Amino acid sequence: MSQIKYPAGMHKAQGVRRMSDNHADRGSSLEDDLNASNLYYREMKRALIYKKPTPVQVVHVDYPSRGRAKITEAYYRTPSTTDYNGLYRGRYIDFEAKQTQNRTSFPKYLVQEHQIEHLQRVQEQGGIGFFIVRFTSLMQTYLVDAGDLIAAHQQTQAKSIPVSWFEQNGILLKEGLYPRVDYLSAVDEKYAAYYMETPLKGDK
Amino acid sequence: MSQIKYPAGMHKAQGVRRMSDNHADRGSSLEDDLNASNLYYREMKRALIYKKPTPVQVVHVDYPSRGRAKITEAYYRTPSTTDYNGLYRGRYIDFEAKQTQNRTSFPKYLVQEHQIEHLQRVQEQGGIGFFIVRFTSLMQTYLVDAGDLIAAHQQTQAKSIPVSWFEQNGILLKEGLYPRVDYLSAVDEKYAAYYMETPLKGDK
Repeated sequence: MSQIKYPAGMHKAQGVRRMSDNHADRGSSLEDDLNASNLYYREMKRALIYKKPTPVQVVHVDYPSRGRAKITEAYYRTPSTTDYNGLYRGRYIDFEAKQTQNRTSFPKYLVQEHQIEHLQRVQEQGGIGFFIVRFTSLMQTYLVDAGDLIAAHQQTQAKSIPVSWFEQNGILLKEGLYPRVDYLSAVDEKYAAYYMETPLKGDK
Repeated sequence: MSQIKYPAGMHKAQGVRRMSDNHADRGSSLEDDLNASNLYYREMKRALIYKKPTPVQVVHVDYPSRGRAKITEAYYRTPSTTDYNGLYRGRYIDFEAKQTQNRTSFPKYLVQEHQIEHLQRVQEQGGIGFFIVRFTSLMQTYLVDAGDLIAAHQQTQAKSIPVSWFEQNGILLKEGLYPRVDYLSAVDEKYAAYYMETPLKGDK
């Protein structure tokens, strides 16, 4: 069971959806790296984080054989949340992953309104919310706090946010084999104060 | 965006998958009630809980028009986690919903191994994990702690767990209009001690 986590179809699905969403973000390599990292984190019992399935609206289903449903007409839906969420150090974490081939800046249109709204709610309600942004041409991947990126996104008049902003406000992620992208170490660094200072509402 | 939360297709999807999984659980009314309750909780900013999309393996996609991807062959996958997770009172919560028409007991086969494994991991890592079980014929819906139901599931020799066990170990959920199923009040009742006694790993 736990091995059938990222069926080829899901990648295909992601690829198709992403391509139709934006043309700067064709690859699924960041997604592959994050899925592999999350699998590693789960096996190490360090965290329990999954990518959500791509929402599909099913219009028609055939039953070629009993108990075997074949979907013959369906369409991709725009998700209402982010792609990844889960449990880490007893806390709820939630993030969106973006990649761009742009060498100098991050195109604002890559971040969608529903992702901003969702991550704002996550932070309002005491969760940890962030973005993982990869500049594929620069071979650099950053973790940035959701609130920080959303503020820059809304305050910047330009259509994109310069790489320098990520260098200043983000944490450059260490990439390797196990995990491929060690973003949880960056979470520890970024939210160390948060761990200590933010009491759970339930503890009040 | 945030309004397209429960497309008809998803319900169909659930229905089809469930039916192929087990024949006691044909309805999606508990699912509908939980989706409506979660939407209400979100609008009230009380919690941020979503049902995960049904995982679908896409085999073939057509492009009748540019940017409009039509899936022409796909199959339902068995999820590796539970159906619902999210953020409540700063904590991670995760649960699976089951319903049965059986009047006297809950058939054990309704709970799948991957759901047991996932909820055990959730609790190991400091999250709140539970089941919501509805006896449709009795018009009763219970919240039961994941650890409790899993223990009963594994210790019971019989093929089902009697309703009396749920009466003794679960919390009977109040059902109404807003929310349709007030399961978060039961979470507060069930995990009040947990709120106080369980420190976050990050606080150590």
